[in-house]
Amino acid sequence: MADAQLDVVGVGNAIVDVIAKADEALIERLNLSKGTMTLIDAEDADRLYSEMGSGIETSGGSAANTLAGIASLGGAGAYIGKVRADQLGGVFSHDMKTAGVDYRSRPADEGESTARCLIFVTSDADRTMQTFLGASIMLGPDDIDPEAIGAAQITYLEGYLFDRDAAKAAFVKAAELAHAANRKVALSLSDPFCVDRHRASFRNLVEGHVDILFANRDEITSLFETDSFDDAVGQLAGKVNIAAVTRGSEGSVIVTADRAIEIAAEPVRDVVDTTGAGDLYAAGVLFGLTRGYELEISGRIGSICAAEVISHYGARPDVSLSALVNEKLG
Amino acid sequence: MADAQLDVVGVGNAIVDVIAKADEALIERLNLSKGTMTLIDAEDADRLYSEMGSGIETSGGSAANTLAGIASLGGAGAYIGKVRADQLGGVFSHDMKTAGVDYRSRPADEGESTARCLIFVTSDADRTMQTFLGASIMLGPDDIDPEAIGAAQITYLEGYLFDRDAAKAAFVKAAELAHAANRKVALSLSDPFCVDRHRASFRNLVEGHVDILFANRDEITSLFETDSFDDAVGQLAGKVNIAAVTRGSEGSVIVTADRAIEIAAEPVRDVVDTTGAGDLYAAGVLFGLTRGYELEISGRIGSICAAEVISHYGARPDVSLSALVNEKLG
Repeated sequence: MADAQLDVVGVGNAIVDVIAKADEALIERLNLSKGTMTLIDAEDADRLYSEMGSGIETSGGSAANTLAGIASLGGAGAYIGKVRADQLGGVFSHDMKTAGVDYRSRPADEGESTARCLIFVTSDADRTMQTFLGASIMLGPDDIDPEAIGAAQITYLEGYLFDRDAAKAAFVKAAELAHAANRKVALSLSDPFCVDRHRASFRNLVEGHVDILFANRDEITSLFETDSFDDAVGQLAGKVNIAAVTRGSEGSVIVTADRAIEIAAEPVRDVVDTTGAGDLYAAGVLFGLTRGYELEISGRIGSICAAEVISHYGARPDVSLSALVNEKLG
Repeated sequence: MADAQLDVVGVGNAIVDVIAKADEALIERLNLSKGTMTLIDAEDADRLYSEMGSGIETSGGSAANTLAGIASLGGAGAYIGKVRADQLGGVFSHDMKTAGVDYRSRPADEGESTARCLIFVTSDADRTMQTFLGASIMLGPDDIDPEAIGAAQITYLEGYLFDRDAAKAAFVKAAELAHAANRKVALSLSDPFCVDRHRASFRNLVEGHVDILFANRDEITSLFETDSFDDAVGQLAGKVNIAAVTRGSEGSVIVTADRAIEIAAEPVRDVVDTTGAGDLYAAGVLFGLTRGYELEISGRIGSICAAEVISHYGARPDVSLSALVNEKLG
């Protein structure tokens, strides 16, 4: 894949995060499903926002976070995802550009406002996400830029896109273009409830069209409807070239047709906010793959990136990941 | 003042902060005056924003930060300041309400967008602020709510208001209403260049209309056009009832007609971002005064509040200041 001009192109929901601390009692009173992502409409977004404490706004979106991570590692990345031409859309566009990501999508001039994810961070650093998809659902097949897909070693797609039909069609188009150009397709399952909502589609995809799969323990067991992590991992072997499955503080395991490689988690002194942990792990692994590193090294880079992002609020790196990885790997 | 229903009402520029890390080379290349606040127009705001790194957005505004601090200390506060009815205006209103401040101003339905302050934070934790006043300049005398002013023990005004004539008129009206209701008027000088721009007006005010003055070393020496801090402090005695002058890491000094009380700075393990240090110091001192505490204690509370806000990004407290002060003062 030496002729590729881009390392990774990401396709996802372009979202601005609104992050506030919350206590367990608030999560309970608002009837939120702790630790997961729930889709909400504009009315619920207003209602929940009014119940939320003072917060900070910062650009997010799963695949967008991953691309910001890849750029911080020194990789060449592009991003496809839709905002509205409004203040938060301006913030999102600004942050993609300053992160060094080639942001390819034009903002929508009408329709709903830029997507917002209300993130309630509890004192255990767990995050409960309530997403108003807003303008991000205006992403459709026409937004998929064949030039970008053809130019990138890996096309990275977030599972959250499956929640809207037009975005799902965009997703499938991107995957087909990538394979037609002899490129790789990576998929992140994103959320156990998202897997629940779209299990059959995800299984078809994983079995037929995905080369590199990212998932966590809950997502992978949900995908194969089993209680056993080992069983789920066993079912993965042979279905995709590479599956990278995260296990929180226990690290991750990278599975290929003939191997399962255990990757340790990088120690973190003070875990503040786990938002973006999976996104940044994916950034590290994808970056390593585009550089042709051993899977052990790629996984290690993923662990280092995830550890950085959970040590502060917000789902994007606060430091140069390239410098951090050089320091850690020597 | 036991009949007051409010402790403090603040009048100021309602601003959303955009905070990003910056290196010294960027400050130099953009020709910014390090450590100070500069007013910019919409065009410069766009240009400088495009040069700024990825950041976070969080509600700010000098007097608004002070009122958020007073509420966090357990005080009853109200705020008067203008936003536009747009996304960032919604963020500002939300954050005032969730901070527990009675926010009295209706958002403007037309005109410029909500004010933004681009804050470049260098590794020495110093902040360089570029402010686009936007909708905040629509604050005028009609926005001054006589009921709120009459109900508050102290009316607190930020010097930054002096940069626009309508806001200055609002400022004067608020001060007159407060004194007519037999209440106290407090003023923060805000910035040495702001003092430079309006020196004569500030001196008239300080000598004739202000009961409690907040300033830092640079502002107070600029006000009296002297190089000597002691000389400036000497000139203050007798002109206002109480002057609280901050000296960065050297703490502060509270001056009355017959005393100058040295207040130590509260130690901070890791100074991250000094934005809001003066605002939160004022919150602590004002809160102490409304509770009838000794000046030594009020100053100490100011130091504790300032130390909290400089230990993280953003100009508002991250924790309950009431709990923090109880813990520190026992």
